[in-house]
Amino acid sequence: MSDNEMYMRRALELARRAEGCTSPNPMVGCVIADADGKIVGEGWHRKAGTPHAEVNAIADMKAKQRQGYTAFVTLEPCSHWGRTGPCCEALIKAGIKRVVAAMEDPNPKVAGNGFRRLREAGVEVITGVCEKEARRLNEHFLLWVTQNRPFVSLKFAETLDGKLATTARDSHFVTGQEAHTYSHYLRKIHDAILVGIGTVLDDDPELTTRLVEGKNPVRIVLDSGARIPLTAKVLQGDAKTLIITGPEADADACDTLRRLHNVEVVTLPCENGKISVSALLQSLYEYEITSVVVEGGSEVLGSFLDSQIADRVYAFIAPKLVGGTHALPSVGGRGIERMSRCATVVEPELLTLGKDWLITGRVTF
Amino acid sequence: MSDNEMYMRRALELARRAEGCTSPNPMVGCVIADADGKIVGEGWHRKAGTPHAEVNAIADMKAKQRQGYTAFVTLEPCSHWGRTGPCCEALIKAGIKRVVAAMEDPNPKVAGNGFRRLREAGVEVITGVCEKEARRLNEHFLLWVTQNRPFVSLKFAETLDGKLATTARDSHFVTGQEAHTYSHYLRKIHDAILVGIGTVLDDDPELTTRLVEGKNPVRIVLDSGARIPLTAKVLQGDAKTLIITGPEADADACDTLRRLHNVEVVTLPCENGKISVSALLQSLYEYEITSVVVEGGSEVLGSFLDSQIADRVYAFIAPKLVGGTHALPSVGGRGIERMSRCATVVEPELLTLGKDWLITGRVTF
Repeated sequence: MSDNEMYMRRALELARRAEGCTSPNPMVGCVIADADGKIVGEGWHRKAGTPHAEVNAIADMKAKQRQGYTAFVTLEPCSHWGRTGPCCEALIKAGIKRVVAAMEDPNPKVAGNGFRRLREAGVEVITGVCEKEARRLNEHFLLWVTQNRPFVSLKFAETLDGKLATTARDSHFVTGQEAHTYSHYLRKIHDAILVGIGTVLDDDPELTTRLVEGKNPVRIVLDSGARIPLTAKVLQGDAKTLIITGPEADADACDTLRRLHNVEVVTLPCENGKISVSALLQSLYEYEITSVVVEGGSEVLGSFLDSQIADRVYAFIAPKLVGGTHALPSVGGRGIERMSRCATVVEPELLTLGKDWLITGRVTF
Repeated sequence: MSDNEMYMRRALELARRAEGCTSPNPMVGCVIADADGKIVGEGWHRKAGTPHAEVNAIADMKAKQRQGYTAFVTLEPCSHWGRTGPCCEALIKAGIKRVVAAMEDPNPKVAGNGFRRLREAGVEVITGVCEKEARRLNEHFLLWVTQNRPFVSLKFAETLDGKLATTARDSHFVTGQEAHTYSHYLRKIHDAILVGIGTVLDDDPELTTRLVEGKNPVRIVLDSGARIPLTAKVLQGDAKTLIITGPEADADACDTLRRLHNVEVVTLPCENGKISVSALLQSLYEYEITSVVVEGGSEVLGSFLDSQIADRVYAFIAPKLVGGTHALPSVGGRGIERMSRCATVVEPELLTLGKDWLITGRVTF
């Protein structure tokens, strides 16, 4: 591991401290080292609207000899005035002579302008150090800022033979405590969580983050017919809820829902009786939702796959077999007809969670 | 790791050299060490009807001072006259003073008699060293000899979302080369391979061991209606084939099949139009088949699960998603109704095979 990589790993570690807190901004970490390689300042971006990582690292510097400093930063420093001042200027003013970045910021407002501004001011710029890790860290932000839609994660818990529930629709409990805790971590790191009305009617979930510390995601229910009962847990509590209805939904039911605290109703077009996935994503983008974890059920997960919209999969696999030709498959929908046209899971990672496994990877079509 | 364990691991390694070759006998390895701990003889059982591991290890001994020898053996030495003489007598005659065994042989003909005979002759006996590994090594034999039925392994290759084939019944190819090679290794280590007639009609497999060195398993086709075409690949070649038909099968078709080289037809009772799994296992036991790997399809795998007959599962998982409520699930059948009554996969092992994973474990009901 090179020295640059060593400092960058530390910067990535700092960035990750704000996991689930920075949206719609990326997580960014910054380490400042003096000419001897001693770390003299560290910082990370904590929350949108608060100072950026570079500014926090500069503020953290004890002795400022103002010479020969190198800043290691996990993303290209910004050059524009957003909610806070441009970091490039702050770095230049602090006497940074060299900036090592993990990657360029693809945000059109930055996109190389930060590096250009630094170079113009005589700062040496190196980029691409630990780029893969930095891209993984901010995959939600990077997709949202370039594709103008939220990052979509499909999450399901299945038996080893791929069942979400038995032939009798029993899904209690497929996976164990460690997997449940991890799924709450997923709620924390996504801006929103989405389920179909079937899941609400069957399981009445709260869809809040309880097993780990962190924010609640926006709760989204696909409910084309506005059938959700007013007693549903997903309509209670402090977390915000979006009910997505179709054009045929009963207007009175929608109005009643709209009057609830923290509940919004959004009406979107349907395709074959189901909410259009592309219209949904457009709407969520407008809500500044950068990421959504789709938690089910089977049909909703299938409708995303059928629409070729999935960026990552989180498959929790329990060491169980239930069988059943008519049991509920983890991913339903119409399905892909040719195996050679399947969605592929790349850069897979495998975790053991208690007795269960988690396989996660990026999804490509 | 104790010294005893070290020698036993070597003996287990020797035993495994005959993997897939010893049925209906167990795999056994033997290491003989002198009083200084130096290994002076090694042997393993190669094939039923040939000398046992202990006899081979004794024959391998170079200088025979006939004092202070310890024999490390992966299974209790036999005390009875089978196809070869009793190993206990051979060990005593060779001047072995101490026998370290991994486990007692549950074969009713041995079952402690070997240890008793050795102790009567003044040989010190220690047992239970690496017992878990020894039980894993000979799990087929141990089940067969105690439960009087073959060991049943369920094997399937599924997408990450649990599909054997797409909605259009396309299953070419779910997993990659490494997984295919491993599945041929499974053919080598099982006495028989079993598929349903659907798999024969859909895929026309050969069901022989080609990608690894080793014997062909007996090929078994569940074909209650004797519908198998005479051109089916599973009816060709040198491997033996059993066609299992039901009482309603056409007599002429059965006769025609019987006349084929290396083909036998067995008629068994049906339950709900399907061959009775318990009658099948009874019949295979009579054929001295100690283990069978069930390779599919979905319905056949499901019928074993529904009958609560499965000793191990080999689930090959490809990093793919195809979705589809009506896609073919890896394990079909009626299915288990309550998740809490599921079959549980215990002592799981996870292997990475190219881009795919293999999860295997013992199945308990």
